[in-house]
Amino acid sequence: MSGFPVFASRRVRSTPFSARIEASGLSAYTVYNHMLLPTSFASLEEDCAHLKRAVQLWDVSVERQVQLKGPDARKLAVLMSARDLTKAVPGKGYYTPICQADGGMLNDPIALCIAEDLFWFSIADSDMLLWAAGLAHAYQLDVEITEPDVSPLAIQGPLANQVMSDVFGPAVTALKFFAFDYFDWRGHKLMIARSGWSKQGGFEIYLHDSTLGLNLWDDIWEAGRAYDMRAGCPNLIERLEGGLLSYGNDMTREDTALECGLEKFCSLDSGHEFIGKHALLAQREAGLTKHIASLHIDGAKIAPITKIARCSIAGQQCGFVTSAVYSPDFDLNLGLAMLSIEQAENGQRINVEIEGQIRKATVL
Amino acid sequence: MSGFPVFASRRVRSTPFSARIEASGLSAYTVYNHMLLPTSFASLEEDCAHLKRAVQLWDVSVERQVQLKGPDARKLAVLMSARDLTKAVPGKGYYTPICQADGGMLNDPIALCIAEDLFWFSIADSDMLLWAAGLAHAYQLDVEITEPDVSPLAIQGPLANQVMSDVFGPAVTALKFFAFDYFDWRGHKLMIARSGWSKQGGFEIYLHDSTLGLNLWDDIWEAGRAYDMRAGCPNLIERLEGGLLSYGNDMTREDTALECGLEKFCSLDSGHEFIGKHALLAQREAGLTKHIASLHIDGAKIAPITKIARCSIAGQQCGFVTSAVYSPDFDLNLGLAMLSIEQAENGQRINVEIEGQIRKATVL
Repeated sequence: MSGFPVFASRRVRSTPFSARIEASGLSAYTVYNHMLLPTSFASLEEDCAHLKRAVQLWDVSVERQVQLKGPDARKLAVLMSARDLTKAVPGKGYYTPICQADGGMLNDPIALCIAEDLFWFSIADSDMLLWAAGLAHAYQLDVEITEPDVSPLAIQGPLANQVMSDVFGPAVTALKFFAFDYFDWRGHKLMIARSGWSKQGGFEIYLHDSTLGLNLWDDIWEAGRAYDMRAGCPNLIERLEGGLLSYGNDMTREDTALECGLEKFCSLDSGHEFIGKHALLAQREAGLTKHIASLHIDGAKIAPITKIARCSIAGQQCGFVTSAVYSPDFDLNLGLAMLSIEQAENGQRINVEIEGQIRKATVL
Repeated sequence: MSGFPVFASRRVRSTPFSARIEASGLSAYTVYNHMLLPTSFASLEEDCAHLKRAVQLWDVSVERQVQLKGPDARKLAVLMSARDLTKAVPGKGYYTPICQADGGMLNDPIALCIAEDLFWFSIADSDMLLWAAGLAHAYQLDVEITEPDVSPLAIQGPLANQVMSDVFGPAVTALKFFAFDYFDWRGHKLMIARSGWSKQGGFEIYLHDSTLGLNLWDDIWEAGRAYDMRAGCPNLIERLEGGLLSYGNDMTREDTALECGLEKFCSLDSGHEFIGKHALLAQREAGLTKHIASLHIDGAKIAPITKIARCSIAGQQCGFVTSAVYSPDFDLNLGLAMLSIEQAENGQRINVEIEGQIRKATVL
């Protein structure tokens, strides 16, 4: 934590749930897609332990939707996505890298096929709307690109099924991973997916009307009382334990989808074209020179790193740590690092410079 | 202020000057272009008074540069800019709206012509790089688009000339507004412009190498001792006193350049084409239905507003306040509002709802 408060303004948007979040023990914010995102409540460690044993309500309104609507919506979605969306079907979400021409990562959204002519990209932290709009403008595509009033609210944790069943009926628990459907609530149809940015399981509700935010929060909160529900948020410890990458932290425009370990989400052998395909094919052919890897970092408990930390072997720089934190459950300092492939094999011991101190680390 | 600290991570970038800023009385941050931006030190009011009487050193690294380089750099810069850049000359900066096809504002950078085939957009808070890259990709332009390692550092206030003259020699004070040139410093050539986001006058140094940040800060700081220099930042009170608009606060994609009062920066009658031109011409012909206006809001001192505040006349909604704060020097609550033109004439009295309380306000 920087320790310095966030100065609020219209530009740094609050969410339909901010009033509840701020009254539920929030201890720190970050900003993501020009909007406030909670990052901790009691503490990273307490939040993590609770997430793994109970259930949490997460304000993830920052997962903004870039909506493509119109006759060319699918054409544009397909062009932008490394994953083949030519046969994407309504009711399903598809995690996909979005690359620039050289294969560098621009975002890694969930693409949601809402209807044949309507797609949402539920985005990570970069203005995908502008990329989509620039392409659509120049290609003269017949597609309207907007950011609709949609604010995801996540229910995450092992007891998520129980809470959701109590609020929306047992049918909601039949949803398969990354599938979504519509469920009645107070006379509204809510779009609900089995998804979320943890490995603990759960749901995301794509609330389509900000003015309903506090009612929705309160109804779920009430049902959650029986399950020790707390307000929570994507947790740094839990995501590193689970190996979840964060755009802007572990991957940037400087890193290709292959270097980020996302080849399984890149449809390089399908017949369709997408931006970045040629570069990724060439890179697959030539072989990678760097890639993202997990690390165990020796020594005493570290604080979450806030900038890249240099890695070296025998004085030779071999990459840098992009995220790292101490995991109490593993009793280890966990990290993700972008490392030279040649130097950083599995089991390799490397040096990591954190806050001016050199530590040993093992590449996994 | 939200009162909640910012959680730091690689994604929310610190700057080459962060260490000095945080040791110089910083009291709040915001996030702008995925990077930390100081927003207050002693207090908004003290900072403002000091800025008007002395000189401040501002970390405005968040003014990221979108670099267009190559044979088609000018072609793309011209296409993106509402202001005619066809004859832009090296050494000059040009404030320009950037619009989407319907005229809606995407950003309002300073376009800097560095060389015939090299332009920088010194941007407000949206990922202009993605807009530029989408257009360049689809139009197959021969231009490389990057974010170079450039971190602006501003010297603002009535004593800015003295400080700059002491550090860089008296020639720097000959710079005309929005002109830039190169000045020697410790064996480096620094690009320096007379510009900055205040009405108090001053300079911006486009530092081209992050590793020099602390040395540069320290040298200017040392020279500033004779002039009561403090660390500062763009100040909400001073910008509202001066009528400076902030992208994301007072203008968004929902507002055209004309509605934002920027017609004088739109070259609608030049022969060249740019994105949004047709929509802006049509709107000029048809007349505006809303526009940005200044307000004086009655009653006791208000805290800075953090969300839009609805405006009405006789119960009819007529727009909303986008920014507002109390000015001690004017002894008035100042605001900017996007208002229906028909209802909101000069001198008109309207109602403004701030924090659940209705106040009277006068449209200027």
